Amino acid sequence: MANLLTELPENLCEEVFETLMRSPDCRIERIVSLGHSTAAGQWYDQDEHEWVVLLSGSAVLAYEDGRSLAMAPGDYVNIPAHVRHRVDATDPTIPSVWLAVFYGAANQIES
Amino acid sequence: MANLLTELPENLCEEVFETLMRSPDCRIERIVSLGHSTAAGQWYDQDEHEWVVLLSGSAVLAYEDGRSLAMAPGDYVNIPAHVRHRVDATDPTIPSVWLAVFYGAANQIES
Repeated sequence: MANLLTELPENLCEEVFETLMRSPDCRIERIVSLGHSTAAGQWYDQDEHEWVVLLSGSAVLAYEDGRSLAMAPGDYVNIPAHVRHRVDATDPTIPSVWLAVFYGAANQIES
Repeated sequence: MANLLTELPENLCEEVFETLMRSPDCRIERIVSLGHSTAAGQWYDQDEHEWVVLLSGSAVLAYEDGRSLAMAPGDYVNIPAHVRHRVDATDPTIPSVWLAVFYGAANQIES
């Protein structure tokens, strides 16, 4: 047993990505951010679908179509493959912990 | 966008299972418990692997081999298919929110 929320990386100068589970069909990652954002002008454009929940801190998630989501702990979204998105901001004062599930072909019922 | 932690079922007389995402290869469920436990003498014996994290409340997870885990928010485990387990107890005073990812053939790197 390990803990997502209390066992945080000591060094958060850079955003920290850790794979917690990997199977042929899906992958679970924890991402810990502290004031990080996606580099200016950059977008994530992923081959996989991503279901992601923010578990602590706060963040602003932006889509290329202009939508912007202010996220609080517990908020989750499903980001289909190749939907371009970026993180405009994360809380600079406390770590923002994300849990992301990357997966293949989807028939999601919530988005 | 929806929220795992603030948008809770009104009626928790029974444990509430909700599928948040379903794809051919994995499925994400939220489970909300309030003092619930697995029926006496019963075990979960699942065809799929389950990666599960407790996000609020507290719980005691037990395995047939005698191991018992007292879980706090953020604690996660990976339960391989057909590893028999049960929930011996969940917090009777506040909701325990679980996030479970069910998936197929595994090559997990954390357990």
